[in-house]
Amino acid sequence: MAPGAPFSFQLEARDGAARAGLLETPHGRVHTPAFMPVGTHGAVKAMAPAEVAATGAEMILANTYHLALRPGEKVVEKLGGLHAFTRWRGPILTDSGGFQVFSLPHKEISDHGVRFKNEVTGDAMELTPERSIEIQNALGADVIMAFDECTPYPADERLAAAGVRRTLAWMERCLAAHRRSDQALFGIVQGSVYEALRGECARALVALDLPGYAIGGVSVGEGHELLCRVTGFTAPLLPEAKPRYLMGVGLPEDLLAAIGLGIDLFDCVIPTRFARSASVFTARGRIRLTHRRYRRDGYPIDVSCDCAACAGGFSRAYLHHLFAANEILSAMLCSIHNVRFYQRLVGGARQAIQAARYESFRSEFLAGYAAASAPE
Amino acid sequence: MAPGAPFSFQLEARDGAARAGLLETPHGRVHTPAFMPVGTHGAVKAMAPAEVAATGAEMILANTYHLALRPGEKVVEKLGGLHAFTRWRGPILTDSGGFQVFSLPHKEISDHGVRFKNEVTGDAMELTPERSIEIQNALGADVIMAFDECTPYPADERLAAAGVRRTLAWMERCLAAHRRSDQALFGIVQGSVYEALRGECARALVALDLPGYAIGGVSVGEGHELLCRVTGFTAPLLPEAKPRYLMGVGLPEDLLAAIGLGIDLFDCVIPTRFARSASVFTARGRIRLTHRRYRRDGYPIDVSCDCAACAGGFSRAYLHHLFAANEILSAMLCSIHNVRFYQRLVGGARQAIQAARYESFRSEFLAGYAAASAPE
Repeated sequence: MAPGAPFSFQLEARDGAARAGLLETPHGRVHTPAFMPVGTHGAVKAMAPAEVAATGAEMILANTYHLALRPGEKVVEKLGGLHAFTRWRGPILTDSGGFQVFSLPHKEISDHGVRFKNEVTGDAMELTPERSIEIQNALGADVIMAFDECTPYPADERLAAAGVRRTLAWMERCLAAHRRSDQALFGIVQGSVYEALRGECARALVALDLPGYAIGGVSVGEGHELLCRVTGFTAPLLPEAKPRYLMGVGLPEDLLAAIGLGIDLFDCVIPTRFARSASVFTARGRIRLTHRRYRRDGYPIDVSCDCAACAGGFSRAYLHHLFAANEILSAMLCSIHNVRFYQRLVGGARQAIQAARYESFRSEFLAGYAAASAPE
Repeated sequence: MAPGAPFSFQLEARDGAARAGLLETPHGRVHTPAFMPVGTHGAVKAMAPAEVAATGAEMILANTYHLALRPGEKVVEKLGGLHAFTRWRGPILTDSGGFQVFSLPHKEISDHGVRFKNEVTGDAMELTPERSIEIQNALGADVIMAFDECTPYPADERLAAAGVRRTLAWMERCLAAHRRSDQALFGIVQGSVYEALRGECARALVALDLPGYAIGGVSVGEGHELLCRVTGFTAPLLPEAKPRYLMGVGLPEDLLAAIGLGIDLFDCVIPTRFARSASVFTARGRIRLTHRRYRRDGYPIDVSCDCAACAGGFSRAYLHHLFAANEILSAMLCSIHNVRFYQRLVGGARQAIQAARYESFRSEFLAGYAAASAPE
């Protein structure tokens, strides 16, 4: 930990299992529950860093796998690390690259690590716990993630158990490889949908007294109900005093459920990816701006929204037109809107937790959100 | 002319043939010489209106042909006109659509107008002087352009003479069709590279006492030298007290030459189009950020530039990476930079004219610009 730049987490309020907290990092504070927009290649798609910050987002995620392939972590390190390279001044979290390499069609998994083909150069490559931490140390994010085995869904209990054993063995190797005290290394709980395995993994990781814990192996096709079940029995096993991160989640309804179960941190590509395909979130549900019903609609995306797109007076009709004309500005404005929507969602949740009315907040939001009559 | 929203042009300074002036329109002032970024579909590509304004651009151009096809001028009119639709608060100029329809592969030209196939719907369409003005009246730009015959290059004198005759006949029909006193209708001088024809066309248009004059039929492949020759013998034929607009021009060296010949207004897709292919302007010439020499280059595009990309500290290496990763942010940042470069260019020219040192300004700029050793 750099002097004067501590990593800490304080719980500020609880409402049932839901928590409001404050994460401090060398690059600033994060008020939780928090949603991290995803900057896969070190840029949140179609948004400048100042625009991301203007949505209220305090922390972003970048992908170790993609950055290691291009431009390479040595280039980023030479140019001063991810913060200097991307000009995002706030906290950054890097994933371990595990999720990406386990998703590749051709890979060889062993206890040593994962061998795969570099999709940029075609070379054979290997990602191991040591290599993942080496890359993440070079990138210099505030929070880095352990290299874990991301068990696919569905997986039988034997496969999931093997994943937990490997994840725990790799956790030890990540800790041994980690060289920077100014970066917090979070552990990841695996174990698929099996309560006993999740418990085994969580207890072993908690014994290591890590600065934070993630629930991984979710958002892999298991659906809302199973996501909630797994989160529901895993979150209580994690220490109260440490931040809890639910990886790759999700839709607004997923976030609200998980916040209710005690999750503090989220990341997901949904707000930016959906924005680029004209799918935008409103208080009354999600709408698709390419639908012809918006061709002459003079209203902003959401009259209740204060984002630069809505407050700036850009109409649904104009956005419909920009999508039809394949104009980049369509992705820019809708990304700003969707990311702001997510920030207002977690910000509203935080306020409600502090006011001890989280469940009313959640049910009121969902009632309005489900009222949407607009076609997708 | 709407009350309190006059259209006027004042000459403020002259230096040789070069002029500094002030154009007043119902949506604000334009300090000349001025460069208008192009918003083909009602959006300057990869830039939000506030970003365009932040470059110092005071006026933009939108394309009648493209907007008539999509979303249709009636949609724009219903939503309050181009200014309300696009959220660009400053002056707007629309072209007549002539340049686009004359560039179509399949079209039938007659004295009545131009018949062509709607590329969006496949329907047969016709653009005539009356129809062009009807569309432009509905769109509601501050300056609208006469529907002219844009003579291709090269053209023999007979063909160019026919173009001038048709352009003059159509000018009368445009004036008769024009319905809005709050829009200034500019005439366009045609005549290809023939001095006698340009003179004939200019004299006939000047007799109509129009609020402004454009030189058209340039930037069609004739090259820098012929562009200067045509501008050089045409500009002096236009009234001193009216703004002069050189359509579709051009590269920095073209602008500086034309300003020296007495041109006040320019538009061109070059800054934004080049930006999207990684070609950016610097005081020392144009460079291409996708070149491998920039892979580890920690400097901004141009250390002497104050744009949001350069002053924001985004390095050439980061931009190189964004282009390699196909990130939209590459186009966003480089468009901001290139448009700002053009604004600094015309702003510098304006200051130099006011200080009666335009030719030194121009030769100093070109000396630095030509010093570029960077590969394109």
